[in-house]
Amino acid sequence: MKQRLLDMLESRKDEMIEIRRHLHQNPELSFQEEKTAAFIADFYKGKDVDLQTHVGNGYGVIVTIQGGKPGKTIGLRADFDALPIFEEADVPFKSQNEGVMHACGHDGHTAYLLVLADCLIGMKEELSGTVKIIHQHAEETPPGGAKSIVESGILDDLDYVFGTHLFPSHPAGTVGYRSGYAMAGRTYFKLRIQGKGGHGSTPHQANDPIVAGAHFITAIQTVVSRRLNPFEMGVVTIGSFDAKGSFNIIKDSIEIEGDVRYMNDKTQEIIAREIERITRGIELEFGVECSLTYTPDYPPLCNDAEVTANVVSILQNADDPAIQEVTEFPVFSGSEDFSYYLEKTPGIFFYIGCMPKGRDEIYHNHHPKFDIDEDALLVAAKAVAHVVCSYSEIE
Amino acid sequence: MKQRLLDMLESRKDEMIEIRRHLHQNPELSFQEEKTAAFIADFYKGKDVDLQTHVGNGYGVIVTIQGGKPGKTIGLRADFDALPIFEEADVPFKSQNEGVMHACGHDGHTAYLLVLADCLIGMKEELSGTVKIIHQHAEETPPGGAKSIVESGILDDLDYVFGTHLFPSHPAGTVGYRSGYAMAGRTYFKLRIQGKGGHGSTPHQANDPIVAGAHFITAIQTVVSRRLNPFEMGVVTIGSFDAKGSFNIIKDSIEIEGDVRYMNDKTQEIIAREIERITRGIELEFGVECSLTYTPDYPPLCNDAEVTANVVSILQNADDPAIQEVTEFPVFSGSEDFSYYLEKTPGIFFYIGCMPKGRDEIYHNHHPKFDIDEDALLVAAKAVAHVVCSYSEIE
Amino acid sequence: MKQRLLDMLESRKDEMIEIRRHLHQNPELSFQEEKTAAFIADFYKGKDVDLQTHVGNGYGVIVTIQGGKPGKTIGLRADFDALPIFEEADVPFKSQNEGVMHACGHDGHTAYLLVLADCLIGMKEELSGTVKIIHQHAEETPPGGAKSIVESGILDDLDYVFGTHLFPSHPAGTVGYRSGYAMAGRTYFKLRIQGKGGHGSTPHQANDPIVAGAHFITAIQTVVSRRLNPFEMGVVTIGSFDAKGSFNIIKDSIEIEGDVRYMNDKTQEIIAREIERITRGIELEFGVECSLTYTPDYPPLCNDAEVTANVVSILQNADDPAIQEVTEFPVFSGSEDFSYYLEKTPGIFFYIGCMPKGRDEIYHNHHPKFDIDEDALLVAAKAVAHVVCSYSEIE
Amino acid sequence: MKQRLLDMLESRKDEMIEIRRHLHQNPELSFQEEKTAAFIADFYKGKDVDLQTHVGNGYGVIVTIQGGKPGKTIGLRADFDALPIFEEADVPFKSQNEGVMHACGHDGHTAYLLVLADCLIGMKEELSGTVKIIHQHAEETPPGGAKSIVESGILDDLDYVFGTHLFPSHPAGTVGYRSGYAMAGRTYFKLRIQGKGGHGSTPHQANDPIVAGAHFITAIQTVVSRRLNPFEMGVVTIGSFDAKGSFNIIKDSIEIEGDVRYMNDKTQEIIAREIERITRGIELEFGVECSLTYTPDYPPLCNDAEVTANVVSILQNADDPAIQEVTEFPVFSGSEDFSYYLEKTPGIFFYIGCMPKGRDEIYHNHHPKFDIDEDALLVAAKAVAHVVCSYSEIE
Repeated sequence: MKQRLLDMLESRKDEMIEIRRHLHQNPELSFQEEKTAAFIADFYKGKDVDLQTHVGNGYGVIVTIQGGKPGKTIGLRADFDALPIFEEADVPFKSQNEGVMHACGHDGHTAYLLVLADCLIGMKEELSGTVKIIHQHAEETPPGGAKSIVESGILDDLDYVFGTHLFPSHPAGTVGYRSGYAMAGRTYFKLRIQGKGGHGSTPHQANDPIVAGAHFITAIQTVVSRRLNPFEMGVVTIGSFDAKGSFNIIKDSIEIEGDVRYMNDKTQEIIAREIERITRGIELEFGVECSLTYTPDYPPLCNDAEVTANVVSILQNADDPAIQEVTEFPVFSGSEDFSYYLEKTPGIFFYIGCMPKGRDEIYHNHHPKFDIDEDALLVAAKAVAHVVCSYSEIE
Repeated sequence: MKQRLLDMLESRKDEMIEIRRHLHQNPELSFQEEKTAAFIADFYKGKDVDLQTHVGNGYGVIVTIQGGKPGKTIGLRADFDALPIFEEADVPFKSQNEGVMHACGHDGHTAYLLVLADCLIGMKEELSGTVKIIHQHAEETPPGGAKSIVESGILDDLDYVFGTHLFPSHPAGTVGYRSGYAMAGRTYFKLRIQGKGGHGSTPHQANDPIVAGAHFITAIQTVVSRRLNPFEMGVVTIGSFDAKGSFNIIKDSIEIEGDVRYMNDKTQEIIAREIERITRGIELEFGVECSLTYTPDYPPLCNDAEVTANVVSILQNADDPAIQEVTEFPVFSGSEDFSYYLEKTPGIFFYIGCMPKGRDEIYHNHHPKFDIDEDALLVAAKAVAHVVCSYSEIE
Repeated sequence: MKQRLLDMLESRKDEMIEIRRHLHQNPELSFQEEKTAAFIADFYKGKDVDLQTHVGNGYGVIVTIQGGKPGKTIGLRADFDALPIFEEADVPFKSQNEGVMHACGHDGHTAYLLVLADCLIGMKEELSGTVKIIHQHAEETPPGGAKSIVESGILDDLDYVFGTHLFPSHPAGTVGYRSGYAMAGRTYFKLRIQGKGGHGSTPHQANDPIVAGAHFITAIQTVVSRRLNPFEMGVVTIGSFDAKGSFNIIKDSIEIEGDVRYMNDKTQEIIAREIERITRGIELEFGVECSLTYTPDYPPLCNDAEVTANVVSILQNADDPAIQEVTEFPVFSGSEDFSYYLEKTPGIFFYIGCMPKGRDEIYHNHHPKFDIDEDALLVAAKAVAHVVCSYSEIE
Repeated sequence: MKQRLLDMLESRKDEMIEIRRHLHQNPELSFQEEKTAAFIADFYKGKDVDLQTHVGNGYGVIVTIQGGKPGKTIGLRADFDALPIFEEADVPFKSQNEGVMHACGHDGHTAYLLVLADCLIGMKEELSGTVKIIHQHAEETPPGGAKSIVESGILDDLDYVFGTHLFPSHPAGTVGYRSGYAMAGRTYFKLRIQGKGGHGSTPHQANDPIVAGAHFITAIQTVVSRRLNPFEMGVVTIGSFDAKGSFNIIKDSIEIEGDVRYMNDKTQEIIAREIERITRGIELEFGVECSLTYTPDYPPLCNDAEVTANVVSILQNADDPAIQEVTEFPVFSGSEDFSYYLEKTPGIFFYIGCMPKGRDEIYHNHHPKFDIDEDALLVAAKAVAHVVCSYSEIE
């Protein structure tokens, strides 16, 4: 059956591309993917599957393909939201929704997974166990869709979970992986420092929040330089120091906003503790009032070591012309809410090269000129198919 | 003649009040005092004096009263601009120019000086030397009017210069003085720090100007704490730190604005040198590009010691019921462009108490409810008259 | 009687010089002035006065001269301790106690006061009220002798208190004064920061007290730059940062020592509060343990305004050839424990010029080459005599 | 012959232990290893090898074993210096040189290599190529012995170089490795800040180097927090801030000493550039004079990827009961001058477990109670033997 599945995917490559182009022309922002979700649900209409819509905190769609034989339950996830970017890519199927663009490849993720799901539905009697197709909304905007889907309980029975992402850094044919922590966790924080306003010539009658804020920033550097294990990745960036005012008036209050990155939970705990500590220290030191909002969004993404080794072995031994290279990727400082699935279920989030052919310059994900080599859709479909066959005991 | 002059002032007290109320109802902002200047010029129409209008960088009016006998040339100055304040004082002659208010007493300064000038014109044959009446525009807004009037050369022949200011801190009848440095100098500065923008997760590819700015602010504290003579007054306030942005983007550049105060030129020189030095140091230390604009506006106001001693003696021995107390005032951290006249010509800028009678609360200069005891107009007129008589050898 | 007193002093000028030279040759350190105190007590032996020795926390000597008529009780104070300095002055009566030197003029203070006291004893029947001669030990070394003498209660009955100090900045014949706050208060503080030692390559396993200490120092600058009234004098100096160690070992703890100066109690309160606040802030901010010892020693010296005005008037009208000029002195950042007497009793601490004649270079107090013009002893004696006569109603 | 070599080593295990104990009892500090070098030279006396002593900047000994057949030239290195530590280990062969101790296992390194060298000499006719035995002095103390040996040119003909280190973190039988950067590079730096001394109460007449130093320390935190790639290891520690002084005197100059760690040359370049930059910035910012001494000692140790893979394969397939596990080790923040050999010649520095059996607590290298399981000597000898046989084509 496995060979039949692979052949079927190969023959439906154009369909994948067609679907991807349709989605590309009709992008929708996170939490607003009403039409996209309807398109997906429509795709499954009349098929012998269990379909659930409006899953989680948005337009999530979960399709359950019940195999004819007992076996493991595995999840396959593709996200379907787009970004608030004006498309500049020179393609005939350019975004029709001005200011919104599929600049991260989610259109491609959804396209290949729809076709793969359909193929699996067609041969489900031969399947051992269950495959849950997770069409996820709102990956781009915290709190994201994944967390709410996980919390809904609908995936509680998963034994394994798999996801992929298109990256134009490598050509179509390359599959990338990284065992363990592979993508960074991220936290947003906001610090409001309430001092006491006054006139610039009488500082002793005021309490200057800009000076307190400056000391916060110099102190916060020590979190990375002194508190973290030097072998661990961690970043604390102050992106915003909102204290515009009159040159000769001491401000009443200011607002600082920052971004934290880390590759594992322990680093996150240390940074969270230290920012809280420094905030309390500054409060006491300068007699100001500090309100700190510290909001972790996606946790670090950690691929299961055993599953990763197994998937790498499956793909390396696939003997499939579509999969020309299986290679280790570096860690990424970007974040993904696929991490929520992996916190609960062993699995792997791996990468599909999609570098457009014959271009001088490559535009990365989130760039207004982002584009993909559509051959990569088949690579993604077949790579996931190999994995599914192995885990669902399809031979 | 002196007694005649004093009697004449006393008899024209109501006229001073009337003029003051007219001006109060018709306030005009700095550099926009067209009607006020016309009113003043009109006052002198047909009188036997030399009148020059549009002096300096605005509506300055200079009236030269040539005495009948040889003697010193002395200048008497009153300013006539108002402030961008919505009047809240409960007076029948409230501002008719909404949003503009004589909240600093310049209406009173001009009122008493017009009447005094008129009296002097009437008895100018008995006068030894020359009196120049300086009706100055735009005291409230740097670069002010005084500097340009001085630079016009029109006052090059002054031997002495005198000015007064109404302050409601003391009752009418009190004359205040301070020898030497009496009001602070002020400087505005702006620092633009050009770093290199980037993503919050990759600080090594950017050059964070917020961190450089925070170090500038912590370093700038040392100017006052370590560089100034602890017995000298000096202030460096950062009123504005303009660096609002996205929490996870490292900014390209930021802008800092500040206010500097000092009581003498040496302190100003030290602060200017140190801010420049720290700016260059931060530039080197963080590899950023710094553009510093350092713009001193009014210099510290320094009353001539000998003239002050003399004026104090004149007033203490005036034996005038209008002048009940002559007292030393503290230094003020506020600024005045009368300082420009004093840089060139010996003189004194002294204070006239004008605390409204029977009020529970006193509203200081620049307050929307600022008001004066109009008896103070006569006090001002007579105090200046005593000084003029002495310096112009009127007995 | 007043003239008789003045003549008597004049005739005993050589005796003053002789006593001063004896003391100069036999200097003793603060709290070790056993022989000096014995010399003083011996001087009064057989005289009709009440003598108390070992007053306060050392060798203080109080001599009470009871006048024949009722009147005020006034105190006259001279200190008698020396300094740990190797004398380099080229005088025939050089210190015989190597490494100890009367380099601050206390020998002269004691010399003139002994002779003046003796004269007063001789004419005590004509005296209205009581004169208490305060021979004070240990002025140079905190906690000093004055505080303990005041606390002993022995001076509780004083109506006025007077003291003088020799300064070579002005020639003999000049008497200096300053009304109000005239000399700075001083505080010593020590901050121990207990972190956690470790290896330089693993900062996350240690808690670096040097970094916490550096932040303490940058923060402490804001006490002067932001917390004090810019017109008030205040200094916070860190003189010692004791953190020598191996370059690659993170230290366990460090010790910081500092010096605080101020001209009035309010400034002292603000600085004390802010250093405590910053200490607690740093403790919290860096998770270190801070032990702060904050030990004010001498308070600011504040001369009574009324007494000062009166003394100035007495001396200006003295018509005494010894007193050629009475002039205002600037505030001094140095400290004096005479301030303790003035906290309790109205009085003045004034200055006696003693610039050696015919010298190219002047060596100030505490310099190894410090020397005085011995004519100043008579000036001191006569100036104090004028004051005593006035306050004790001697005519 | 390979099997003969391995059997021979096994049979001479006791000799290795005996030699190790002799060396352990007679430790010598870096650059003072006269007797140790003599012992080594003596060991080779009468053997058919080329022996060079006093190689490099100390007591280095190089033994060249010329094989009977043409082939590669490989180097085997063992260090032989000890540490300034008072031994506290409870062993019968305790250090006889009080205050000096073989607390890092160099005695064991030398012991196994002497026996291995002797075995190779015995069968050198069968050897293809040349083996150079590098008995290196002074590994513990920068500048170390390795750099000078490399610079002497004596090893210019090496094709490969191998070294091992005993670590009690793993039991005897474990061999550890790490491909690429495996041990940190280290730099010592010293910063002298020359300000201008003065009195604590007059900071404006001095230039406070402690404040400048504090700002240096807060600024230096940004090197790690903002300048390094967050995924790269880097440490900057200030171990010493030498500024003890009197609490009320502003110091003339201070001295700061620090330690820098990094895992690759690029990080080292960035840190070196930034510390220099911040130093120049502080100099300008505070008007002080800064002298910076920046002395890199051992560079990061980088094992050749290909050689590492090959050696791992050799050892994993050795089928030798002495080698029970071949496992990847983490990177170490410690430093080793073996890095100099690897900068010039491909090779690997790998690890030999030596955890003493039956102990509750393990004392790591450099601990006064450091001890080893002497079985590890045979493991080291055999592991190196396997590698030598492979590279010298011994079958």
